[in-house]
Amino acid sequence: MSKTPEQIAREASAWWTTEIVDIQPGRIGIRGYPIEQLIGRLRFPEMIWLMLRGETPQREQADLLEAALVAAVDHGPHAPSIAISRMAVTCGLPINGAMASAINALDDIHGGAGEQCMELMQQVAAAVEGREPTLELVERVLDEYTAAHGKIVPGFGHRWHGTDPRAVRLLQLVRDAQARGVVDGRFATIGTLVEEALGRRKGTRIPMNIDGATAVIYLELGFPAGLGRGLFILSRSVGILAHAWEQKQQGGRIKGPMPPSVPYTYTGPQARDLR
Amino acid sequence: MSKTPEQIAREASAWWTTEIVDIQPGRIGIRGYPIEQLIGRLRFPEMIWLMLRGETPQREQADLLEAALVAAVDHGPHAPSIAISRMAVTCGLPINGAMASAINALDDIHGGAGEQCMELMQQVAAAVEGREPTLELVERVLDEYTAAHGKIVPGFGHRWHGTDPRAVRLLQLVRDAQARGVVDGRFATIGTLVEEALGRRKGTRIPMNIDGATAVIYLELGFPAGLGRGLFILSRSVGILAHAWEQKQQGGRIKGPMPPSVPYTYTGPQARDLR
Amino acid sequence: MSKTPEQIAREASAWWTTEIVDIQPGRIGIRGYPIEQLIGRLRFPEMIWLMLRGETPQREQADLLEAALVAAVDHGPHAPSIAISRMAVTCGLPINGAMASAINALDDIHGGAGEQCMELMQQVAAAVEGREPTLELVERVLDEYTAAHGKIVPGFGHRWHGTDPRAVRLLQLVRDAQARGVVDGRFATIGTLVEEALGRRKGTRIPMNIDGATAVIYLELGFPAGLGRGLFILSRSVGILAHAWEQKQQGGRIKGPMPPSVPYTYTGPQARDLR
Amino acid sequence: MSKTPEQIAREASAWWTTEIVDIQPGRIGIRGYPIEQLIGRLRFPEMIWLMLRGETPQREQADLLEAALVAAVDHGPHAPSIAISRMAVTCGLPINGAMASAINALDDIHGGAGEQCMELMQQVAAAVEGREPTLELVERVLDEYTAAHGKIVPGFGHRWHGTDPRAVRLLQLVRDAQARGVVDGRFATIGTLVEEALGRRKGTRIPMNIDGATAVIYLELGFPAGLGRGLFILSRSVGILAHAWEQKQQGGRIKGPMPPSVPYTYTGPQARDLR
Repeated sequence: MSKTPEQIAREASAWWTTEIVDIQPGRIGIRGYPIEQLIGRLRFPEMIWLMLRGETPQREQADLLEAALVAAVDHGPHAPSIAISRMAVTCGLPINGAMASAINALDDIHGGAGEQCMELMQQVAAAVEGREPTLELVERVLDEYTAAHGKIVPGFGHRWHGTDPRAVRLLQLVRDAQARGVVDGRFATIGTLVEEALGRRKGTRIPMNIDGATAVIYLELGFPAGLGRGLFILSRSVGILAHAWEQKQQGGRIKGPMPPSVPYTYTGPQARDLR
Repeated sequence: MSKTPEQIAREASAWWTTEIVDIQPGRIGIRGYPIEQLIGRLRFPEMIWLMLRGETPQREQADLLEAALVAAVDHGPHAPSIAISRMAVTCGLPINGAMASAINALDDIHGGAGEQCMELMQQVAAAVEGREPTLELVERVLDEYTAAHGKIVPGFGHRWHGTDPRAVRLLQLVRDAQARGVVDGRFATIGTLVEEALGRRKGTRIPMNIDGATAVIYLELGFPAGLGRGLFILSRSVGILAHAWEQKQQGGRIKGPMPPSVPYTYTGPQARDLR
Repeated sequence: MSKTPEQIAREASAWWTTEIVDIQPGRIGIRGYPIEQLIGRLRFPEMIWLMLRGETPQREQADLLEAALVAAVDHGPHAPSIAISRMAVTCGLPINGAMASAINALDDIHGGAGEQCMELMQQVAAAVEGREPTLELVERVLDEYTAAHGKIVPGFGHRWHGTDPRAVRLLQLVRDAQARGVVDGRFATIGTLVEEALGRRKGTRIPMNIDGATAVIYLELGFPAGLGRGLFILSRSVGILAHAWEQKQQGGRIKGPMPPSVPYTYTGPQARDLR
Repeated sequence: MSKTPEQIAREASAWWTTEIVDIQPGRIGIRGYPIEQLIGRLRFPEMIWLMLRGETPQREQADLLEAALVAAVDHGPHAPSIAISRMAVTCGLPINGAMASAINALDDIHGGAGEQCMELMQQVAAAVEGREPTLELVERVLDEYTAAHGKIVPGFGHRWHGTDPRAVRLLQLVRDAQARGVVDGRFATIGTLVEEALGRRKGTRIPMNIDGATAVIYLELGFPAGLGRGLFILSRSVGILAHAWEQKQQGGRIKGPMPPSVPYTYTGPQARDLR
């Protein structure tokens, strides 16, 4: 604590360091650009890209990112995040609180599949070492992956949908973009091979789902795996907000997961007295 | 609890009711549209609009919404939400947890100004009753508003910026859209009159800020005040994510608000012994 | 920004000011007491009291506080907070994240009844002005309260329990403490009168519930209304933790509010095509 | 979806299953005990034990648990959790929201050290296989642990305190309890050996801290490692609440991590124009 005031002032300023935003009276610079130049010229997905990566994307790169953001906004009240958002509103929470509690639930299991699928596909890409990916190579990486992470392969299969219509459409957009030279299609190929390998193993089709398809897009666009979860959250936040708002219009107080008429099951000790 | 199984099953299904999304095996309908028709065709702001309001906007309406979403993404680490996001990462939280803690902080004071400003402008609009808004009328509504809510008028003034460059640019876009018949400019006029009235009162210019300018846009586009906060959160989430990610790259463990070298001030009782 | 380093250093230290805790290398003072004197000598409720109020309570005051803390720990999985805690675990959240999402839900409606009931009883106490509270006076305050806050009177009635066994027992403990001179019983009397007044109005008994009974205790002990919610949270956190832990042992992934076999009700537009 | 109403009703009830609490109209059973028998008779730490473990502890076991809960309530505003709690209040959050955002931050790094230390000590205990633990054996387990988890050994050392006065006092209480036959002292011995081994490695004393000492107590009392974090949260919640409440009394709006007079450091691109 025997620092000089100069040292303390310097350390305090250095404690918070950022390359993202520079704020001075009357001036807000985003990655160097005056914000007023960006407003009305950058699309929202382009702004997301600039904020996360430091430079603006090309128009067709932003188109792909936008398609992925549009695709994942909602999956209904059976999803814990959506249900939590609605229950929170009936507890009196404002929109920010409901969104916070819901987004908090987008952790490894409920929000991490895209990120994990990106890691898996990056493992395949690393094993490929510039060659063409093959089914054999994908099988080998899958063996390693399931040995380390268990049987569930993130990004493939869905308990609701035989075929995920979002994934089909997104893959088609990736192939279109590849045809126009926007992306090279490497991860789309890897994803398709993983799907094929899983189908062989299980003896039935385990189709790529929304997490797998957005993982392909984010990798094709050069995003690191760690941002996969964040991009998913930006997308799903829209559904979380829409459901919070709808619940607010519906009203209701202290809405539990099931109606009071549906009892839960108690399996603890029989009634007893404190000795 | 003496309900029949039929009643229980019916009540359980009716407990969760939504107009937003219909999910069946292999089919996801968003406000009636098959999701695969929306992906790659709707822009992200259009999807946000559809989710929140049930119908898609016109192209130029979506442009204005997009400009507002772009404008509010970040205001640096002095903002508690951004700081909380970064501190949370150094505590070991994943991206979803950091974003949740940060978004939670966007409550009445840190995230509610836009919504409150929309309410104020709606009060003015209601008082206008179809006539042209005048400075006198705005003064009267302001008197009522400050009597009920205190001296701080949300959406005007800023402790950092004399003029908020975001607000200037956004207002210009509203006037452009008005010239093209996209919006009618009513709330832009109201906002300008509030600014003028505040300037008179304080004897110095209290310029419209980002919350005021986005409030104008959201009202011109027909959003209810209650969604003002939610739209702001969708925008600021981008900054919260970018800073969480940057902090993750920087590393750091258990990063407090100030460096350990800067002591806090203890003003409690002198050291004493438990009797 | 043209401050001297001395000013910056001073302002930085003054930015965080507390009377609660003084930390120096090798020394932690809680409200002036060396922490090692408190450990093993203060009971947990006494520590809670010291932290919140600056001085330690008398033994019998701590007994009453402890009874209130014990009483409110859990109300089963129909309570949104408990359900959120369990759902969060199945999304992959660690204990801290599950507890955070759940505690967030203890807002005005689900966690604020105790605080609101304290405010109502304080209004009665203020109207009494030192005289003996009467049913007429309570009726008058109730009229004012419901005019301002709506028909629901916090702290009385319960959708599950005719009589709340927790409230009965807690009231008995307050009366016992009153007989021993620990508290003066003023708020117990007010609570009983409110119960009587409500029964008259509705033509049926609206018994005091856990929120009402703990409100009586906290007021008898001199806690401000604003701490009622916080004390409830300290208590309910125990249940939130126990259920999070039990769910972790049970396993389960992405557990929605209802089993997948129970459909929700979609009431939005019929299936349609994007034009 | 072709289930009968009977099946749906049964599945819905079975979806939520608990051994903790049984709620019927007019009856609340906690682990089988009517709640009114517990109120006023169980101490708060005994209730915590009953909720988490299903049975009540002996009086002296509860004393040790209570000492640990008292010890960890607060470590000042440099701790991110405490700072977040205070910042949240200045953003307009109610007590529940401030506590939620703060508790969320008690993740692996800021709230997980106790749990991790319990796992380490359990590894030592498993390696001991009933024999007396020795320094050599502890060294070997430490090697394995740091190989798997990195150089930081949770529960030992502190960036503020040379000796942690809380740990010294808690260890003394464990030894006292051991002398009275309440615990067997096995983990106290293991903890002391770890401390010795670390001191040898670093050539300077790396004393057991609060996380290490509470880990010893929780293990001596038979708690699983996974509950270490939860018990810490119950304790630290008291400090989080006290600081939220103090900040509310102090006032302040949108309080960032450092005063506005202390600038942060921007290291991004120089100002540039959007092409």
